[in-house]
Amino acid sequence: MRVLGVDPGLTRCGLGVVDGRPGRASLVAVGVVRTPVAAEPGDRLLYLEREIERWVERYRPDVVAVERVFADVNVRSVMSTAHATAVALLVAARRGTPAVFHTPTEVKAAVTGSGRAEKAQVGAMVARILGLDEAPRPADAADALALAVCHAWRGAQTSRLAALADGARS
Amino acid sequence: MRVLGVDPGLTRCGLGVVDGRPGRASLVAVGVVRTPVAAEPGDRLLYLEREIERWVERYRPDVVAVERVFADVNVRSVMSTAHATAVALLVAARRGTPAVFHTPTEVKAAVTGSGRAEKAQVGAMVARILGLDEAPRPADAADALALAVCHAWRGAQTSRLAALADGARS
Repeated sequence: MRVLGVDPGLTRCGLGVVDGRPGRASLVAVGVVRTPVAAEPGDRLLYLEREIERWVERYRPDVVAVERVFADVNVRSVMSTAHATAVALLVAARRGTPAVFHTPTEVKAAVTGSGRAEKAQVGAMVARILGLDEAPRPADAADALALAVCHAWRGAQTSRLAALADGARS
Repeated sequence: MRVLGVDPGLTRCGLGVVDGRPGRASLVAVGVVRTPVAAEPGDRLLYLEREIERWVERYRPDVVAVERVFADVNVRSVMSTAHATAVALLVAARRGTPAVFHTPTEVKAAVTGSGRAEKAQVGAMVARILGLDEAPRPADAADALALAVCHAWRGAQTSRLAALADGARS
């Protein structure tokens, strides 16, 4: 299963592509899209849309996994994160690629075993899982890869459990 | 000045087009886009995008005015509102149409004289200003028209003040 993980944001949007199945994952691509802070909000979204479209066209993921954002102390940053999330959902929907959400807690738990792990620990585990020399930087890039790994592992497990349940029923 | 007001939402997105200048405003079109609650979030955004695109192509507004959303008690509804906002910004940016934000307080103050007016009062004033027999329904439609009126009045004032300031400087 190939997953594009998206850590949504307008200042920095992390993108990470992973091929994986439970217990295994390999890096395909990782990067960060930055949109110009001084630009109009709509133009920033348009720029981000074009970049995510390029990634989706190039890497053809089976699924797009997006971090589910919750309210934060900083309302403005939550809003721009939500806007970036909408762009990712739109790009996926336009291609008929399923989009799924995972919470930060699910992602941390999937890669470190603890839903309350620190950022550095997540980065270190992403590097270990994908066989990289060091944690991808910036953190948004590592987070996008962690999301992709989380979905490749959890999503596949869920599908397998569903298949087992189907088998048990038939 | 022709303004498309957008009261963003996925369950109901109010759209209202007004031709106006300070003290004057006339109704061009009003409506509400509803997206299927059971559909995937991305598909709902795609549907909304197509509808807003149709409105922008048909009515060719000079400006798109969007309600600025703040955090709410209901995080999920704020997120879907923010996603709908992103769609409106994207559609406007793609056509090179400026998009502006107004807060609910600004909108209420523009049409009723009070930033703390009730919904019913806003609807009643929108009807009076636009010469309608009754307040447009649902409230999202009335709110979209109020936004458009607000921008046609305030936006024009701002531009006029800027022009005066330019004149004074030259």
